[in-house]
Amino acid sequence: MGPHPAVADVRRAVRLSLADLAASRESRKSREPSGALVLVACSGGADSLALAAAAGFAAPRLGLRAGLLTVDHGLQEGSAGRARDVVRLAPTLGLGPAEVLTVTVGTAGGPEAAARDARYAALSEAADRLGAAAVLLGHTRDDQAETVLLRLARGSGTRSLSGMAEVSGIYRRPLLGLGRARTRQACDALGLRPWDDPHNDDPAYTRVRVRHDALPALEAALGPGIAEALARTARLCRDDADALDAWADAVHTKSRGPAGELDVSVLADVPGAVRRRVIQRAAVEAGANAAALAAVHIEAVERLVTGWHGQKGVDLPGGVGVVRRYGTLVFAVDKLSLA
Amino acid sequence: MGPHPAVADVRRAVRLSLADLAASRESRKSREPSGALVLVACSGGADSLALAAAAGFAAPRLGLRAGLLTVDHGLQEGSAGRARDVVRLAPTLGLGPAEVLTVTVGTAGGPEAAARDARYAALSEAADRLGAAAVLLGHTRDDQAETVLLRLARGSGTRSLSGMAEVSGIYRRPLLGLGRARTRQACDALGLRPWDDPHNDDPAYTRVRVRHDALPALEAALGPGIAEALARTARLCRDDADALDAWADAVHTKSRGPAGELDVSVLADVPGAVRRRVIQRAAVEAGANAAALAAVHIEAVERLVTGWHGQKGVDLPGGVGVVRRYGTLVFAVDKLSLA
Repeated sequence: MGPHPAVADVRRAVRLSLADLAASRESRKSREPSGALVLVACSGGADSLALAAAAGFAAPRLGLRAGLLTVDHGLQEGSAGRARDVVRLAPTLGLGPAEVLTVTVGTAGGPEAAARDARYAALSEAADRLGAAAVLLGHTRDDQAETVLLRLARGSGTRSLSGMAEVSGIYRRPLLGLGRARTRQACDALGLRPWDDPHNDDPAYTRVRVRHDALPALEAALGPGIAEALARTARLCRDDADALDAWADAVHTKSRGPAGELDVSVLADVPGAVRRRVIQRAAVEAGANAAALAAVHIEAVERLVTGWHGQKGVDLPGGVGVVRRYGTLVFAVDKLSLA
Repeated sequence: MGPHPAVADVRRAVRLSLADLAASRESRKSREPSGALVLVACSGGADSLALAAAAGFAAPRLGLRAGLLTVDHGLQEGSAGRARDVVRLAPTLGLGPAEVLTVTVGTAGGPEAAARDARYAALSEAADRLGAAAVLLGHTRDDQAETVLLRLARGSGTRSLSGMAEVSGIYRRPLLGLGRARTRQACDALGLRPWDDPHNDDPAYTRVRVRHDALPALEAALGPGIAEALARTARLCRDDADALDAWADAVHTKSRGPAGELDVSVLADVPGAVRRRVIQRAAVEAGANAAALAAVHIEAVERLVTGWHGQKGVDLPGGVGVVRRYGTLVFAVDKLSLA
């Protein structure tokens, strides 16, 4: 008798995600745990618990070692005890080493962003220290759908709508193709009791409101399958954004003079979506504040190319000025040099 | 005293939209109504009524003539009388000619799609017959937001998310930057009494559920400004989709042999988002059924390029087969010719 279908789904997803790290066939036969180390970031919730169990099962079969990291954010009563419980579970799932990472959460960017920043900093540090080849994260298709809706509210385009990447640096998200219900079924089938974070039901968090109110309302209005549709949108938008970034890189290289100035004739010759990406790159390269650069700034610079009537230069956040001069766009921090 | 700000907003939007059709300054001075004809598609609802009033005001000042079309779908009690009322209003708004277009709505694609198809066919026919340079449609930013959400549910990517175009053939949508509340204010300020279509409150329609349930739920979860964010997303996605289409056109031309076959080495060299668009074009050109072509088909053809291991050809809807042969992808309807 094979494993429960949900367990099989999660294991398959982990196996696919780790395939490129797998040891050679010969070294795998020896079952020596000599291969690369992968770490599972596990909160004890259903998604990352199912992921941890699957990694403990799949990694040795690929000639890999799998360990576990759990982050104690110190934000809730009893968090330290829960983190210890998760670590204690690790050996029974075939995972080691297993560590609690205790972090101090700041306030920058709001509580959700601050907790996330602290968590990723600790995970990256631990991965580095332990020499891990990958850190696996338990985000599911439902998390991806929530992310896309959250990004949609910003109205900031294709890259933003592309949601979370399957692979980003050392991080991997094997479960982006599976629904949240599936990981809970896997835990049930394995007799694992996930921890339900009360924050996941606290409507003070935007993500929780998206999960409990917005997505069900969308599903009621539009019919079932909205999470799959949003996740598919994310994949398509990621491919499109990657292609446009590649194009913009090529145009940036082609149009760029020795001092970072851009050749207007090259910029005039490409579609607006590409031109604006090149302008964005050149502005950031010149020292403009990327976070504060808005569409209105980029479009004002673009008009120096597409709507040129001798207008004056454009000031960008971060003290960068842009002027058009002899058929080029000149970006400079010292505004006196543009006089 | 100037006009009410809402009236001014709608007039400004119409003026901007028609600027490229404006008569020369000299012919405008004569106030001869000799310029091009623009037609407003007016249901009598607040959006298209405000649009009609603004067109009647702005068009003559641009040396243009403005007329009105109203479509009687024959689907509701009293629709013929209402259509006549709208046409009777036209001269008081400075609009002429004014016509009722009576259509017969079929069933293909569901009631919403069938009514839309019949409406656009009648509008296009009338525009052609009357020699109009443009047909103005009253879609607002809120309609655009609804459209983006409806498209999102399909999960079909950037082009789909780009919503309704500001200009598409003879059609123009001057009000995509204005909220629905603004057109109602404009009607109030002008003493116009819009007709409220009961279909706009009938939850049998997906769009109505999006309007009354999904968008308010999104707004409650994510904060105000969701309609603006969705409309901004549409604009950005449209620019991105246009750029990628231009790229795909260039690659298609470059990779295309005399019989429509594609050079694999050219396809291998571009990002997946572009490659898949080129494959889509070539498949449709070869006679594949565009509506039935799904991502899974395109990806199977793509693997003939990126995952080539001597696999057999791919069958596409519409009886088109694709095989890889001597470094090209050959698309053919007659499968025997691929043997």
